[in-house]
Parts: sequence; structure tokens; C-alpha cells
Amino acid sequence: MRTRAAVATQAGKPLEIMDVNLDGPRAGEVLVEIKATGICHTDEFTLSGADPEGMFPAILGHEGAGVVLEVGEGVTSLKPGDHVIPLYTPECRECDYCLHPKTNLCQAIRETQGKGVMPDGTSRFSTLDGDPILHYMGCSTFSNHTVLPEIALAKIREDAPFDKVCYIGCGVTTGIGAVINTAKVEIGSRCVVFGLGGIGLNVIQGLRLAGADQIVGVDLNPDKVPMAEKFGMTDFVNPNEVESDLVPYLVNLTKGGADYTFDATGNVKVMRDALECAHKGWGESIIIGVAPAGAEIATRPFQLVTGRTWKGTAFGGARGRTDVPKIVDWYMDGKIEIDPMITHTMPLEDINKGFDLMHAGESIRSVVIY
Amino acid sequence: MRTRAAVATQAGKPLEIMDVNLDGPRAGEVLVEIKATGICHTDEFTLSGADPEGMFPAILGHEGAGVVLEVGEGVTSLKPGDHVIPLYTPECRECDYCLHPKTNLCQAIRETQGKGVMPDGTSRFSTLDGDPILHYMGCSTFSNHTVLPEIALAKIREDAPFDKVCYIGCGVTTGIGAVINTAKVEIGSRCVVFGLGGIGLNVIQGLRLAGADQIVGVDLNPDKVPMAEKFGMTDFVNPNEVESDLVPYLVNLTKGGADYTFDATGNVKVMRDALECAHKGWGESIIIGVAPAGAEIATRPFQLVTGRTWKGTAFGGARGRTDVPKIVDWYMDGKIEIDPMITHTMPLEDINKGFDLMHAGESIRSVVIY
Ligand SMILES: [Zn+2]
Ligand SMILES: [Zn+2]
Ligand SMILES: [Zn+2]
Ligand SMILES: [Zn+2]
Repeated sequence: MRTRAAVATQAGKPLEIMDVNLDGPRAGEVLVEIKATGICHTDEFTLSGADPEGMFPAILGHEGAGVVLEVGEGVTSLKPGDHVIPLYTPECRECDYCLHPKTNLCQAIRETQGKGVMPDGTSRFSTLDGDPILHYMGCSTFSNHTVLPEIALAKIREDAPFDKVCYIGCGVTTGIGAVINTAKVEIGSRCVVFGLGGIGLNVIQGLRLAGADQIVGVDLNPDKVPMAEKFGMTDFVNPNEVESDLVPYLVNLTKGGADYTFDATGNVKVMRDALECAHKGWGESIIIGVAPAGAEIATRPFQLVTGRTWKGTAFGGARGRTDVPKIVDWYMDGKIEIDPMITHTMPLEDINKGFDLMHAGESIRSVVIY
Repeated sequence: MRTRAAVATQAGKPLEIMDVNLDGPRAGEVLVEIKATGICHTDEFTLSGADPEGMFPAILGHEGAGVVLEVGEGVTSLKPGDHVIPLYTPECRECDYCLHPKTNLCQAIRETQGKGVMPDGTSRFSTLDGDPILHYMGCSTFSNHTVLPEIALAKIREDAPFDKVCYIGCGVTTGIGAVINTAKVEIGSRCVVFGLGGIGLNVIQGLRLAGADQIVGVDLNPDKVPMAEKFGMTDFVNPNEVESDLVPYLVNLTKGGADYTFDATGNVKVMRDALECAHKGWGESIIIGVAPAGAEIATRPFQLVTGRTWKGTAFGGARGRTDVPKIVDWYMDGKIEIDPMITHTMPLEDINKGFDLMHAGESIRSVVIY
């Protein structure tokens, strides 16, 4: 079939909106009509050329929601008409990782996904001239139609609005999951969140959901305070306005150190501060942000020997087919909020404006509505 | 009273054996006759002058066993005749740390202990001329008699031999506890232990006790293999004999990475290797070794974001009054071995020979028997 897509033709160039060819689903695959997709920093990271593993031409986008149109041979868990959210971290429920209680990093299709192709080694996308176009993160939601493996689709309820729950495909789950799945924050905890962008806001609402007593937000931009407070931030710290060193200031503010800290900045110096303001004896620090290629985190081992734990999280430690439908329910039940974070919407034709808004720091999330 | 002690008069000098004055126990304190004490690397670290917090003159030693002679006012859990092991990590059962489920780092007397004095701010030791001598790690087991707070003594069974179970006061508990309390190793785990000295051997027997399937020992010295195998090591790796990089070699040897890795070297580069050979998705690395002042650990945050956890442990995460008596039982029941690790014994007069043996790498543990 023919569909409309925003194609990343090369690093550093705007996306090109064009018609592309899409082959139908092969065995174990599903054809999905994408109804809405968020524009995430990871798309920007790849498009900019900063991602050493980025490949072109490709159809980016990994934060979508849509409807199943057709299923390939052997697909049993989905049927045409089902509402779905694509998963860049799939859940096969059979690999060593899926069967291990401590991880969500299903490896069933990791290699081909990393190469921009489907599990059989080929791409379903091509130009109208027949040149192949690569998939991206196994999703390619910047195309109105896309093909995904069955194990990379979470089936969700049909009354959930696509233009909101698409954000659960990445940012919402990453932030809330870091709190619930990775840190396993207990009621009454004191916590610090570094970076009040989209991920940070979702960490904050995850902490509120988990019953944290103190939710300290740290950001250089005070404009972010009202929204962060709306999502549950109890204290704001602007490092530029702290006269002493930041770490002892935060330790003092949290009465001895935070039970849990989260880095949502991707800055390795901030990651160190996040670890070191965690409480002696039991504080845990979770790295969510993606650091520049080659950057390293460092600390004195004494920080760990005296009881701090350093962890990271990917896709919020969520097992997508199992956990994403639950998070959709939480949204529909009003336990979490998404609407205020979707600051801009646009048609596919204007997708490059979404990237511009991100660069300018004007959006929390832009969503393309097909 | 007067007692016999080995006094560290200044950094870098041998201990001086002399008679010293010891005041009796004040409120909440206990007078103990030390029957045996191990000589630990931490004593050496302080005596050498490498410890920036070392203070002199002091009576070192923190790995002892003995008998209660007298208790001060208000002491209720111990009475004369009780057999005890001194605890450099006390357990008050009342402070915020003792009441927190995730730590053993009781802070009740931390400040005064760090200053080499008893909780009331004074020392019980003095020279025959009346000049004060400092306590060390709250224990000072290099004195035939010493005074400790009640909360820094574990009461143990009376049939346990002092010259063996003294080692439970530090090395045994540190190694076994890192496995059981900090890592919480599950049956069937694959594990790597870096450094086959006394701590490493105790990690290994902790892993055997915990039912690990694979216990890889890593050390530059192949002479350590027979003893490590006796304690449960299943595979030995000498980094000098590995032709490829060490980390991928260990990942391959453990079928994808170790479930748990332990650094018992204190070398920050080894700590990095230990983290990076842990399994993607769920591997945990535990730092036990004490690094030189100012040394830092480093890695790419990607290592954590893809599911590895970096932790540390002090005194094996053990709560001394609760856990040490159990470890003594395990020794008496034959669940763990200590005797082969006590390679040398000597009277107090020869204690400097114990340090010489440590320097020469000839001992696993030297024990002074009073
Ligand atoms: Zn994303
Ligand atoms: Zn899987
Ligand atoms: Zn020791
Ligand atoms: Zn305590």
C-alpha cells in the first residue's frame, strides 16, 4: 500500500513529508494505522546526527497510538480494529529477559530492530522508486501506517483518546515506570527529580501516585515551576540560586538525603549530584536521561560503600504489553494526567514545527495528529 | 586497671607493646577481656598513614573476641562471663538507621567513634604517665582489655573458639554478608569475585552457602587457586593470561554476564570491570574493597540504563548484634569454614610479625592470641 510519512533522509536535515510504499504484514506482523504520535527527544537525538547508531533514510517516531488494520500469519493476540500502542521495547514473554523477574529489556528482536529492519531482516518501507527506507526503534510512528511485530504492540482500551495516550508509548511510561518499577518508591519517601522537562514531570506525577511525602524538583529554568507544582512538586531548587554547594543543600532540604533521586537531564555531572544527594545507608539514584556518546559518570566508591545504590532505567522498567494498558487505565481513571503536557498538536505536514518548538524549549510535548 | 596493649604511636612506625591504663566502664559501657584478635588490612591502612582520618596515638584492632568482665550502669543485655565479639558497626536498635529496613549503618555513636573516643567524648586508655591514647573503630582489640559501648558487642555462644570466631568480627561477616545481606544472591546464580584475599574467600564461601551455580574467581596470583577452590570457586581467571579484553571474556564465561559481581580489591579500575561484566538487564555489582583516598569509579551511564546496578557494602550489610551470633552458629554447625583462613597465630608481643606477613602476602589472616 501507499501511505504518507515524514522521512528522515539524512542527519541534520528537516523531515521530508512524502508518500511511501508500505508492504503488508508478514508472519507475526501487524499493520497499524497510526492515529497520533508524540515527538520525543530521542527522535531529535537521531535526526540531529548525534546518535552514533543513527541510520538514514529512516522513518522516525516511536510514541504512537493507532488501530490494527490487518494481521499477518500466526498473529493471535491482535485482530483488526484493536486499539494499540507501539512498543520500542517489545515483550515476547519467551526470551531469557522476559522470563527474568528483574528486567523489561526483551531481547527477542533487538538485533534487527537496531538495524532498522523487521525480524526477518527486511524493511516494509520503500520510496515510490522502490528504494528501501529503514524502520526506527521498531516503530516508525511518523508514518500514517506502519508494520510492527505482534510482540511490539500493547492492546489498549477503545475509549482512550489516541492524541493523549500516544504519550504513554514513551515519556509517560518512562517517567512513571522509573518510580514504580525501577525505584519501587514507598509511601512517605523523600525524593529529588533533576530536570523538569516531560520526563521529569512524569517522574513527579509517578512520585505523587506512589505517595511520596516530599518531591523536590531541580531545574535551571524557573518557568517550569507552575507545571511541576501542578504535577506534584513540593519544593523547587534552582541551582543558580543556591549559594552553597548543591549536594549539601539538597541533603539538608531532604532531612539527611533523599530516599530516591532521579536524573532526567542526561548530564553526567547532574547524575553524580543525584547519586550524592541520596541518603546515606539506603538512598537510591536512578538514571533516566540519555547522556552524550562517550560521556562517563563518576563518584568516589565511598558513596556506594556507605549505602547508596546507582541504577538506571529504560522505558521505565515497564513490560509494555502488560504494563502499558494499565497506565492507559490510570489515565482514563484520572490517577495520572497527560493533557496539560501535550502543549502543541499539528498535522503531519507540520511535524518539523514540532522539532522547532522542542529546540526553542517552548513545548513539553508536541503531538502529530493524522 | 593496667593492661597490655600494642600501641600505634605514629603513622608508619611498628606498634609498641606496652602496659597502658584502662579506666573502668562508665554508664552503658562494658569491660571486655580480649582473648584473640585478627589483624586486618584496615588496621594496616591506618597504621601506614594512608588513612587521612587516622589519628595517633591509638590502640588499633577491630576483629576480636573475648569475655565480659564488668558492666557499667544501665547495661542490661550483657553480664560478666558472657562471650562477645566487638562491633565496629554497632547496632543500637533505636536510631533512624537501625529502624530503616535497608541499612546496617547504625549512627548512634558514629561521631565519637570517628574521633577515637567513647560516646561521652573521653578515652578510657592512657599511658602510664597519664597521657590519653585513642580508641580505634570503637574496638581497640590490640589491647588485652578494652571498654566498649553495650551496643557495640554481639553476644555469642560460649563453646565457640575465640581464636577462630574473632575473624567474624570483620572479614568473615564482610564477605559472607555482602552475598547474603547486600546482594541477596539467589540459588543458581552465576557470580564473579575479584580478588582472592581474605574478603574474596569469604565472598566465595558466602556464594557457596547461597547456592550459586558458578563462582568465578579473578586474581593475578595463581597461588591463590587451591584455597579459593576449597572454599567453592568453580572457575579461575588470571587477567594476565586472558588474551582478549577481560570484561567480554568474563561475560562469555558467565553465559552473558554475571548475576552478581563483587570487588574485593579496592582498585577502582577493577570496580569498573566488575560492574561491566554484570549481566545486562539485571546484573548487580557490589563494591566491598576500600579504595585509596580520592580515587573515583567511572563508567558510561549506558551500563546502568541497560539494567546493571552498582552498590557497595560495609560490614557485609550485617546488623552485628543480630547477625554475628548467627554467623558464629553457622561456623559451629560447619556451614562455613574459618580455620583454613587463619594461617598464622602469634602472641601480642609478635603482632608486628603479623603485619610483616600481610605485607609479604604470606598470610590470609594472622590472629593474635592473648
Ligand atoms: Zn521517546
Ligand atoms: Zn522477550
Ligand atoms: Zn577489618
Ligand atoms: Zn542505631
